[in-house]
Amino acid sequence: MTTQLERLRARVELVGAPLCLGVDPHPDRLPAGLTPDVRGVEAMARGLIEAVAANVVAVKINVAFFEAFGSVGWAALERVRVDVPRDLICILDAKRGDIGSTAERYAEGLFGHLDADAVTLSPYLGEDAIEPFLAYPDRLIYVLARTSNPSAARVQGLGVDGDLVHVRVARWVTERWPDGRVGLVVGATAPAELSQLREAFPGPGFLVPGVGAQGGDVDASVRTCHGAWAPGVVSVSRAIAEASSGDDWLDAAVTSSIAVRTRMTDAVVHSMSSAAHVAPNGGS
Amino acid sequence: MTTQLERLRARVELVGAPLCLGVDPHPDRLPAGLTPDVRGVEAMARGLIEAVAANVVAVKINVAFFEAFGSVGWAALERVRVDVPRDLICILDAKRGDIGSTAERYAEGLFGHLDADAVTLSPYLGEDAIEPFLAYPDRLIYVLARTSNPSAARVQGLGVDGDLVHVRVARWVTERWPDGRVGLVVGATAPAELSQLREAFPGPGFLVPGVGAQGGDVDASVRTCHGAWAPGVVSVSRAIAEASSGDDWLDAAVTSSIAVRTRMTDAVVHSMSSAAHVAPNGGS
Repeated sequence: MTTQLERLRARVELVGAPLCLGVDPHPDRLPAGLTPDVRGVEAMARGLIEAVAANVVAVKINVAFFEAFGSVGWAALERVRVDVPRDLICILDAKRGDIGSTAERYAEGLFGHLDADAVTLSPYLGEDAIEPFLAYPDRLIYVLARTSNPSAARVQGLGVDGDLVHVRVARWVTERWPDGRVGLVVGATAPAELSQLREAFPGPGFLVPGVGAQGGDVDASVRTCHGAWAPGVVSVSRAIAEASSGDDWLDAAVTSSIAVRTRMTDAVVHSMSSAAHVAPNGGS
Repeated sequence: MTTQLERLRARVELVGAPLCLGVDPHPDRLPAGLTPDVRGVEAMARGLIEAVAANVVAVKINVAFFEAFGSVGWAALERVRVDVPRDLICILDAKRGDIGSTAERYAEGLFGHLDADAVTLSPYLGEDAIEPFLAYPDRLIYVLARTSNPSAARVQGLGVDGDLVHVRVARWVTERWPDGRVGLVVGATAPAELSQLREAFPGPGFLVPGVGAQGGDVDASVRTCHGAWAPGVVSVSRAIAEASSGDDWLDAAVTSSIAVRTRMTDAVVHSMSSAAHVAPNGGS
């Protein structure tokens, strides 16, 4: 049986770039023709995923944009998730973090009920918040290490004996779950932290948000995803989804996804040729 | 207009104890007569809240136990929330933590759509995760500082220049939002941390889980809630909800809630008389 990591690796190879589509449909930022409500949010998510599927490895759907509408939004999320093409990895960006039987119930909602391939989780409560998710065989988990937002360093950047909190989180995750099923979320907007974490922890797959509208560096992000033992993905949301706010938004999204994919492929090729100078068998 | 803090303070005075009912209905732990599915979960939550309402200040409903069933579970949560008696503070224990427009959407779901009086939030992403919730006037927020679970210290207990991460979180929250709307979650299972945090930060209201089945100390918890500028609450779940697993579970829950309330009232009285020796006007 093909494992989730093998699926992800094969898909990255096929697409030639670690591009993940970020799906964050805000009702106030929907394109022309869609109503600023849960129907518009669902229509945008569905249209976008269908249109750009061929150019991406994974979709990262942010649960908040559906949960804002309560049960009706969750019903929309269920429909959107069911129709995600089966050759894509479906990441539910939920950032949940609770303990014991409560974490079990969150895992049941995301891995059981919604059948996600991967989720994002918060590390603040320790392994009690992560382990119930590992009880579901062969799903992937991305633990928040260094996020892409302005106040990320408030807690993550506190100094711990010469390290920073986010480095301690990365070390803990890497050492405790070395089989590649647990990766790290590291924002592209902190390029120094991104490359330091990659250098220190070559094993885990990274989920890298913050490229595009948030200003993160595409090349640096792709380099940190490529060549790791567990493949990583770089998530791009608005630069694709909001490439146009007019009637042509789907065409614009496809064009933009091709452009980002091509740029990432170039970065992969460049990264491989640089790596070749150091280690002929590396960077594959 | 009465503020939420004034409502909470008045309710604590009326009940005579800072007792909060924790509602964590796990389908595998429902009492006799209820089916282990979303209908059983809803029936248990409704029955429990209605039965013990007179003996508690607040209800803390854990979102995970409904979310596990997806949209159907969220619909049950909506019905449960609508029927929470209006004189109780309704805390949705969601532990959300995301950024910018995503955090806005979580706030819309919890404070807008579900009309919660209070929520729990994770501090790992800094103020970007908290501020969108403060945009809803007069709601309360409890930020996770020191949680009650075994692996709590993994991240929260990392040493930062002689402090611990959870102390830094408490200081940041206290200094940044001194108006009492933002309190702290501090587990009763870490009594040393609980009293240290209370001593260092007399201002913010505490939400103290972990009493009862998790083994936390009732008296110590009540002392940390009483006398603070912003009133706190001590959450008790299983010791009330699972006092009996038989047909008499509701009667047992009422009896148990009265016993816990009485014990807390005694602790409040004792705490006031101890305080009186030190400062005649303190401890009110």
